[in-house]
Formats: sequence, structure tokens, C-alpha cells
Amino acid sequence: MKTVTTFSELRLARQQLFEPVGFVPTMGYLHEGHLSLVRIARSDCASVVASIFVNPTQFGPKEDLSSYPRDLQRDLVMLEAAGVNLVWMPEPGAMYPPGYQTWVTVDEITKPLEGGMRPGHFRGVTTVVTKLFNAVQPQKAYFGQKDAQQAAVIRKMTDDLNFPIEIVVCPIVREPDGLAMSSRNVYLNPSERQAALILSQALKTSQAAYIRGERSSSALRGIMEQVISSEPLARVQYASCADAVSLVELDGPITQRTLLSLAVFIGKTRLIDNVVLEPMA
Amino acid sequence: MKTVTTFSELRLARQQLFEPVGFVPTMGYLHEGHLSLVRIARSDCASVVASIFVNPTQFGPKEDLSSYPRDLQRDLVMLEAAGVNLVWMPEPGAMYPPGYQTWVTVDEITKPLEGGMRPGHFRGVTTVVTKLFNAVQPQKAYFGQKDAQQAAVIRKMTDDLNFPIEIVVCPIVREPDGLAMSSRNVYLNPSERQAALILSQALKTSQAAYIRGERSSSALRGIMEQVISSEPLARVQYASCADAVSLVELDGPITQRTLLSLAVFIGKTRLIDNVVLEPMA
Repeated sequence: MKTVTTFSELRLARQQLFEPVGFVPTMGYLHEGHLSLVRIARSDCASVVASIFVNPTQFGPKEDLSSYPRDLQRDLVMLEAAGVNLVWMPEPGAMYPPGYQTWVTVDEITKPLEGGMRPGHFRGVTTVVTKLFNAVQPQKAYFGQKDAQQAAVIRKMTDDLNFPIEIVVCPIVREPDGLAMSSRNVYLNPSERQAALILSQALKTSQAAYIRGERSSSALRGIMEQVISSEPLARVQYASCADAVSLVELDGPITQRTLLSLAVFIGKTRLIDNVVLEPMA
Repeated sequence: MKTVTTFSELRLARQQLFEPVGFVPTMGYLHEGHLSLVRIARSDCASVVASIFVNPTQFGPKEDLSSYPRDLQRDLVMLEAAGVNLVWMPEPGAMYPPGYQTWVTVDEITKPLEGGMRPGHFRGVTTVVTKLFNAVQPQKAYFGQKDAQQAAVIRKMTDDLNFPIEIVVCPIVREPDGLAMSSRNVYLNPSERQAALILSQALKTSQAAYIRGERSSSALRGIMEQVISSEPLARVQYASCADAVSLVELDGPITQRTLLSLAVFIGKTRLIDNVVLEPMA
């Protein structure tokens, strides 16, 4: 496994990779969710490139940029074991040099959910992903369904801007007890870790009601809110039942592919999770 | 010379071109200025791709989108004679399908000059050029110095977004009497055509003063305004003396590479022209 930091090192190393190239962009502090992306890329592509970059432009001024967990040596061991060929760790000063002033924005689909709670977040995401795509030039890129809106936004951007890249969205990886894997889970103390199960439980309960025949979007939202309200350490930020492609909040009976999604504070830690409801007769 | 319209036709035809590929994006109604870009690309690259697309998103609601001159058959004859290998003529509906919502914006450098007079213009330009770059995947792309701010904006965007593309800016091509070539010159009636010479004359007069030792930016602007005021059919929109890279208007004595630029209405036709002043002792 080769590791590079500068754009010129990347360019040289990229030229020597076998095609097609699969790309897994990360912010580091890796877990099984990231590694599942690498393994799927490994099985799809002749080479796999991963990037590790805690992108400052997708954090709000009151968010956890400075405290975001980092462990580069552990990350590199994990990526090598998972079969990555090339790791790129760009420097923030090279990604956003003085005078930097170009932004990629996606409009409607970034407004609800995470975009509503984290202004500017998706502008940072779409801009950095455009930069990473242009620098790495992959044929395929892998994102996790855990960040469902991010995956939908990247798909929309890739399509709208005609990137010659296939976006592959991979299933959420969960701990044995159901907690969706996230680098931010490290923030949780033991009682919060237990309380955090309420997200997957709320989603499961609502999904079960859907499978039993409940088609009312407000009822499905209500079930999630009710389950979360039973956990004293949890405070719901949003509980959404939205069209899975446009992310427009649904109102009335569900007929299409639907995203149930949650953002919940467990103490000071903000966690998200989701499940997709497939259309049923 | 091959001509294609759809993205899938383009992808196939692009794969068969020898590398490196040079790209000349145009809005059609070609003149010697465009052909000079093709000839320079021809001498630099193994293959040349040209696009013809009157991009709706770079026209303001009161601008000349619907009346913009078109002559596709003539354009194709000229491109073939100049040695283009592949012409791409995308359909507006394929470039901006229903639900399109992704935009590329460059901030500071798009605010003065053309950006100040044409709100949204550069957002349309940078978005379509990103789409064209992603679809054509050239190694080099050629732009005319006639649209000096556009060239500076594209350079900045390409650099900021890490496109692996070299931007080549080619000199202004002029009619024998000095008028900068432009597809919009066709709008001029005979007396306006004569009056339009005032743009190049104003630039030349100001440039001559600079060469004779005049270093005051306001004096150089004043010379341009004075020359243009001598032409009854002309109405100046801006006369600028700005840093050639940042496009920030200069105030005080000139020491750096400087762009003198003009936007002038001749009757109802808006024309632009410019000249670069190189630093002198």
C-alpha cells in the first residue's frame, strides 16, 4: 500500500494503478462501515484508492472539527489489511489555499434533514467530493447509506455535473446490538452508549408498523418520536418520513420508496440513522 | 470529423481519440477568434474536440438568448476545415433535465466587471464548463482573451477544483480595422459597425499613455472614458483598470500586470474588449 500527501505524488501514483479504480473517501477514524466500502470496492475494481481528510468546510462554526477523532496509524493498518492500494492524505492548506473561492452547491435536495440542521454542511461535502473526484479520477466511488442524504446529494451532483463516475451506496454496518457504526460513537459514555440504541429501535418499530400495513407518513413519524421520547438521555432533532430520492417530506399515505431518518442528541453527541422502506402492495 | 449530440455517443467517440485531447468549447456562430483556438489546440494536441452549445444558464432574463446568432451548417464546415476531430452539440434538455439543481460558483473574481453587470452569468459559465470538462475529459482546454474575466474565472475554478486540465488562454483576434471579433458584431448596422471601433481606439490610447509613462489608474480609466465619449453612438458601461489576476480595480499607481477593459453599448449592442498592460520599469 502506497501513501501520498501532495497532489503531484497522487498524480504519479494514480497513473500506475490498474483500471478500473474504485475510490473510498473518508474522514479517517475508520470503523467496519468504512472497511465494508473498501471490501466492496476491492471486489468490484482492479485498484482501490482511499482518502483520509477531515474536511473543514463541511463543519459548522459550532461543530466538532477540532475535536473530531483522529488515529492515522490505526487507519493505515486497517486500510492496508482491507486491501487498499493507495491512500491519499491531503493537507488542508493544499486543499484550500489562500484565495480559495470555488464552491459546488446542490439546491433542493440539500435543504431538508441534515441540510436544514447544518447550514453549509453539504456545500462543503459537494465541494470537497468534486475536488477529490477530479484529483483521483476513479471509475467508481463508494459511500455509506448511513449518511443517506449525503449519498443522495452526491448521486445528484454526479449526475447533474456529468462526472464519468458510478456512485455505489453500501448498506449501513451496525454493532451487534443495532447501533449504526459512526466515528462519533467514541464520544458516548457507557450510559449514553446504551441510550443510543434508541435510534435503531425507533426505526425498527416504525418499519415494523409499515410492514404490518401502516401507510400514514405522520403515524410512522409519530412512532419514531414516541419511542425516542421513552429514553431520558435522548433528544430528537428530526424524525423524518421522506421520498427516498427527492428527500421531500411525505404528507399522507406512502406509495413510493421511502426514507425513515433520525437525528438525535444523546447527551451532547448528535447521532443519525435511517432505514429505507421498499414499496409494498 | 465526427459529430455527436448525446452523452453516450460522446463517450464512445471520446474513447477512440488519440491523447492528449484539446477542447474548444463554443456557443457557435464561429469566427476567426474561435478558429484560432482550434488551430492552437491542433498544434498542441493529438486530437481536438469542439462543442457548440448556446448555454441558457449564462444568459440573464433580459439578455439575447433567443436572438443569439446561430448557423450550425456553416460552423461545422469551418470546424472541419480547421482540423477538429469531434464536434459535440448537446441538447439543452439533456444538459439541464427537469430537476437539475447543481451549480458551480466562483466568488470574489466574478463580482466586478461582467459579473457586476450580468448577475448569474458566471455561475452559468462555470457550471456548464464543469459539465463540458467532465463529459469531454480533455487534457487541455482553450479560451479566448477577448472574454478576459471568463478566462480568469475558468482558470481559478480549474485550479480550485483540481481539474487535471491545462487552461490555455489565446490572444484576441481582431478585424483589420481593430474591432475585436465577436459573434455579437453581427448585430451592428453599418454606422454602428464604424462606431464600434471606439472600443479598440480607447484601449489603444490608454495603453499608449501607459507606455509613455502614465501610471495613474484613474488617469488611464479617464482616457478611455474620454475617447468613448467622443463617439455619439457609444455609451460606456464600465471602463476598468484592474489587477490582471484578481480583477480587483486599481486605485493609485500601477505596478503589476494590469487589465484595461471596457463594456460599451453601441446602440443596443453590448460589446466588450480589453488589453493587458505588462509591468514596466
